[in-house]
Amino acid sequence: MFKLYGDRQSGNCYKVQLLMSHLDIDHEWVDIDILAGDTQTAAFRDKNRNGKIPLLELPSGGYLSESNAILDYLAHGTAYLPSEPLAMAQVLSWQFFEQYSHEPYIAVARFIARYLGLPEERRAEYEAKQAGGHKALAVMEETLATSPYLVGAGPTVADIALYAYTHVADEGGFSLAGYPAVQAWLARVAAHPRHVPMG
Amino acid sequence: MFKLYGDRQSGNCYKVQLLMSHLDIDHEWVDIDILAGDTQTAAFRDKNRNGKIPLLELPSGGYLSESNAILDYLAHGTAYLPSEPLAMAQVLSWQFFEQYSHEPYIAVARFIARYLGLPEERRAEYEAKQAGGHKALAVMEETLATSPYLVGAGPTVADIALYAYTHVADEGGFSLAGYPAVQAWLARVAAHPRHVPMG
Repeated sequence: MFKLYGDRQSGNCYKVQLLMSHLDIDHEWVDIDILAGDTQTAAFRDKNRNGKIPLLELPSGGYLSESNAILDYLAHGTAYLPSEPLAMAQVLSWQFFEQYSHEPYIAVARFIARYLGLPEERRAEYEAKQAGGHKALAVMEETLATSPYLVGAGPTVADIALYAYTHVADEGGFSLAGYPAVQAWLARVAAHPRHVPMG
Repeated sequence: MFKLYGDRQSGNCYKVQLLMSHLDIDHEWVDIDILAGDTQTAAFRDKNRNGKIPLLELPSGGYLSESNAILDYLAHGTAYLPSEPLAMAQVLSWQFFEQYSHEPYIAVARFIARYLGLPEERRAEYEAKQAGGHKALAVMEETLATSPYLVGAGPTVADIALYAYTHVADEGGFSLAGYPAVQAWLARVAAHPRHVPMG
């Protein structure tokens, strides 16, 4: 059975939880508290040198890190990761976009505001995150204005990956009022019969 | 024929150039000057809403963005992107690591130092990048101390992706003196008969 080391408040961990629900993948969840330093212990770093969650432990005993690589592994052979090379690459393109152009703004702003309580010494950083987050939302809006999902006619790991922090973007100070297609897409993803909420 | 929009000084673009050389993929290169604003024109943003290079134009006329997604697309069906699901996921894991834990430190420090000339108003940011860059190099060192390549016995797109900015890490202020396995791996990658230098 798979074992997933994660924090239920982390969008990166929620991505994996949400895909496992969609695909009905049996697993054991191991709670890891980032703020308490659980990812920086020697025991955890033996499992993942980079000291990050989520971390997937395979039935064989090996480990796989990076939320999006875990999604891709679990989705392999399903419609959530298309096998046709260009469609697969388009899904991956959105996942790399998520990690480089979306998460560092929207998730980090949310972390500073919600978990750290927006302390004065990080206010400038928080405010500097706003423009990048809105740029990412605008890129998504343009695609979702003409397509029900990010790639193709049904949900893929691209949607799972980007749903995670977009649906709580307001907690990082990002209003979605200017992004009607993003809002409709969030509702579409959340309406899936196998949807589970974060937390 | 493929068309690649890129800047020859950009490691993200060099990744694609290097893989195309390894795989002998015929293509046309279109020079794009980031500092001159070429990625922010309306014409370019019609091709890539996110305004970034490298950008691959397909023979069909479609576009694919994100350096690592382009690598994965071009490598599909070759040993550079293993088809076995776990090996493929391990390659992807390194690519996501590259974009989240390596590039934002090493490539950005290099950009500030080499292209902007380390202006006083960005010195604090430059210095703040050093710890994260060394953390990424230490993660690579641990793996490469026991393996000739990042995943398996031969080069994959994980090596191509991480070679790009690691081999010029010194331009961002990162000495590789403490990372002998990384140095040996850089030499191994550069010794490939189809290697091409950056620039």
